[in-house]
Amino acid sequence: MKTPIIKEINVTPIATVDPPLLNAAGLHAPYALRIVVEIVTADNITGISEIPGNVSTLEALASAVKLIGGMDPFQLNSIRQKLMDAFGKETAAERGNTPWDQRKLVHIYSALEVACLDIMGKVTGRPVVDLLGGKMRDRVPFAAYLFYKYEGAGGKLGFKTDPKAQGWDAARQSKALDPAGIVAQAKAMQKEFGFKSLKLKGGVFEPQQEVDAMYALREAFGPGVPLRIDPNAVWKMETGITYGKKLEGIIEYLEDPVRGQENMARVRKQVNIPFATNMCTTSFEDLPAAIRLGSEDIILTDHHFWGGLRACMDLGRICQTFGRGISMHSNSHLGISLAAMVHLGAALPYLTSALDTHYPWQSDEIITRGRFRFEDGAVQVPDGPGLGVELDKKALAVLHKNYLDSGLTKRDDEIEMQKVQPGWKFMAERW
Amino acid sequence: MKTPIIKEINVTPIATVDPPLLNAAGLHAPYALRIVVEIVTADNITGISEIPGNVSTLEALASAVKLIGGMDPFQLNSIRQKLMDAFGKETAAERGNTPWDQRKLVHIYSALEVACLDIMGKVTGRPVVDLLGGKMRDRVPFAAYLFYKYEGAGGKLGFKTDPKAQGWDAARQSKALDPAGIVAQAKAMQKEFGFKSLKLKGGVFEPQQEVDAMYALREAFGPGVPLRIDPNAVWKMETGITYGKKLEGIIEYLEDPVRGQENMARVRKQVNIPFATNMCTTSFEDLPAAIRLGSEDIILTDHHFWGGLRACMDLGRICQTFGRGISMHSNSHLGISLAAMVHLGAALPYLTSALDTHYPWQSDEIITRGRFRFEDGAVQVPDGPGLGVELDKKALAVLHKNYLDSGLTKRDDEIEMQKVQPGWKFMAERW
Repeated sequence: MKTPIIKEINVTPIATVDPPLLNAAGLHAPYALRIVVEIVTADNITGISEIPGNVSTLEALASAVKLIGGMDPFQLNSIRQKLMDAFGKETAAERGNTPWDQRKLVHIYSALEVACLDIMGKVTGRPVVDLLGGKMRDRVPFAAYLFYKYEGAGGKLGFKTDPKAQGWDAARQSKALDPAGIVAQAKAMQKEFGFKSLKLKGGVFEPQQEVDAMYALREAFGPGVPLRIDPNAVWKMETGITYGKKLEGIIEYLEDPVRGQENMARVRKQVNIPFATNMCTTSFEDLPAAIRLGSEDIILTDHHFWGGLRACMDLGRICQTFGRGISMHSNSHLGISLAAMVHLGAALPYLTSALDTHYPWQSDEIITRGRFRFEDGAVQVPDGPGLGVELDKKALAVLHKNYLDSGLTKRDDEIEMQKVQPGWKFMAERW
Repeated sequence: MKTPIIKEINVTPIATVDPPLLNAAGLHAPYALRIVVEIVTADNITGISEIPGNVSTLEALASAVKLIGGMDPFQLNSIRQKLMDAFGKETAAERGNTPWDQRKLVHIYSALEVACLDIMGKVTGRPVVDLLGGKMRDRVPFAAYLFYKYEGAGGKLGFKTDPKAQGWDAARQSKALDPAGIVAQAKAMQKEFGFKSLKLKGGVFEPQQEVDAMYALREAFGPGVPLRIDPNAVWKMETGITYGKKLEGIIEYLEDPVRGQENMARVRKQVNIPFATNMCTTSFEDLPAAIRLGSEDIILTDHHFWGGLRACMDLGRICQTFGRGISMHSNSHLGISLAAMVHLGAALPYLTSALDTHYPWQSDEIITRGRFRFEDGAVQVPDGPGLGVELDKKALAVLHKNYLDSGLTKRDDEIEMQKVQPGWKFMAERW
């Protein structure tokens, strides 16, 4: 086999329609930003990937791609080393206080690694899952991701809805600002996608309202449907303990009730529910203290934030070794990321929960097969070579134009929230 | 690419000439036992591997191979799961007190995984190192492995030497029972192979003699050559502290001075030398306590004992994450294992020391390219597809006959020692 050589790397920022979802950091903008990376080899084999969009990631990617031109995509260890040498060590502080990770190196390496794995799969005729040790399951289970939200479709419609919308598409545009709204959303989402677990993005309203929503979900779906809630670390310690206790016996896990490993460990001792995190233990550097303190039971991996698919496989081994469960975090994303998540989810030997995905909230797509389908809440692992999805260049161009037109350069849910609630401020500890 | 399917698995026990090397468990027999595994696909592509020989491993392998017939060699996660389901959980006790690991599952999975990786490399036209993330280095550094030994060549010559032997081959047969003998052995070995680090297998004589040997090596080679000693955990706590302190400033690391993680951790607090282990932390199950107690600074991986090459890559990530160095343990072995060790050594991103190998002590070979060469103490990574070595079937048949003729069924250094020193008994704590 001829060794593939990286000839060209295209980096395209895009903006994809996103509805007005509420979370602890504020409100989703009408468009979610993503970056699409295409790596083309000298033999014109293309590998693709998708990561969260941000102007500083975009600039860093532009400098990173110069480092790996001419390299063989199989040389992932060397590619990572090159980036580490160039970018230096990133600190935990650079992650930021937001629910999403803001470190550059992990994003950039993830973008390059996934695109390289796509190429490796294509040149060897193998799906990416087989480059991660092969399938443990043919279908990867996801959870319904429920959001408090304002009425509206996002995109150009903003807070308006499309009167022609039907089924989930209509429900997706409806408001959900109380327990009844959340139950209605869950029912519509379960009907459309068949999800078998439900997760509520919390930290938005007073804890009692959110606990009420969990009880309402339990009432509506019964004890056979695992429930989770994620206040994104904006609960105070007392709140975590008080409302955590109220959720005992009701939920599968409580995600990031409070901020920081030490606080998580303290609250976890008082509350008899497994704790999950994508906020207090978010990198390999965080793991020694997580293990020492016992800050969580389940780590939510995310290949965009942990530095690629193989790093997430390593994290899986660490979780298994140290008695932690593993599941998966998500941000607003399209089908390239979903494909990568599915390959990873299929390969992880010790997957303990259904994975998170924002995918049902997005309506755009940039892959030629069109939008992925969920059956019984699960996605079938694509069986073509590589990721098994191809970039739709026309759709990409449309979403790139959206990006240029939107004027957005980075995710800032606080600014969006201020458009609705003037003077609203993000608070690292709100309730 | 057509999916390869496992059609046939051949398991061949062999006995390879081994000289009378001394160690804490006794004396090497005239032959070291290995098992060679060949996996053949429906398209007649063959993958090979080599593991330590033992009749119980052999029997377990025979039952394991039935489980994976008809499978695709890329499905390593499923293959491991099948074995785990069949063999159940192995305990730390099953490892045994000997310097070498006696658990079955890790050996068997290692044998199957390496042979499958060899096939994966062949069908994709890629060296195994590229299936582990690619090369971090083109040449993998090894250390000279020095042994106290009786005079003799092993094999049919037993304690006799071949009068026609020259150079290292003659030195290999010479006795080395005191510091001067060890220095002479080190000089001959360094001249032949160019090793830049020296390791003495200790635990054989009174600690003062062995410490004297380390001082004699330091005197002969100067401070630029890193030195190590491995008493294989037969020193008492006081001995570890007293003689450990005498080695401060003289050696690169002290390997397994005492037995068990707690004792290692206690002695390590008193002695200002990095501690390495292949005895107290030998499996993923051992890692939580190792991290909690601080039993060592460096973990010596071994793909035969840790369950394959990818598991060792995972261990590398864990060592990096938890601030441990990583290097590699060895037993008597031939070129198939050396090839696998070199691919792994080339891929490990954070290799902190030269690796161990017994290879210079063996004189047989079962690969068509003949014996590997060391240059400046390092081995060039084979660049052919897969492991880059092919099985020499004639040589294999000769060593299989050796196995049948030898009457040996498992390694038992105590019995061999008793032939020289009647009544000699292995003691888990000797000095």
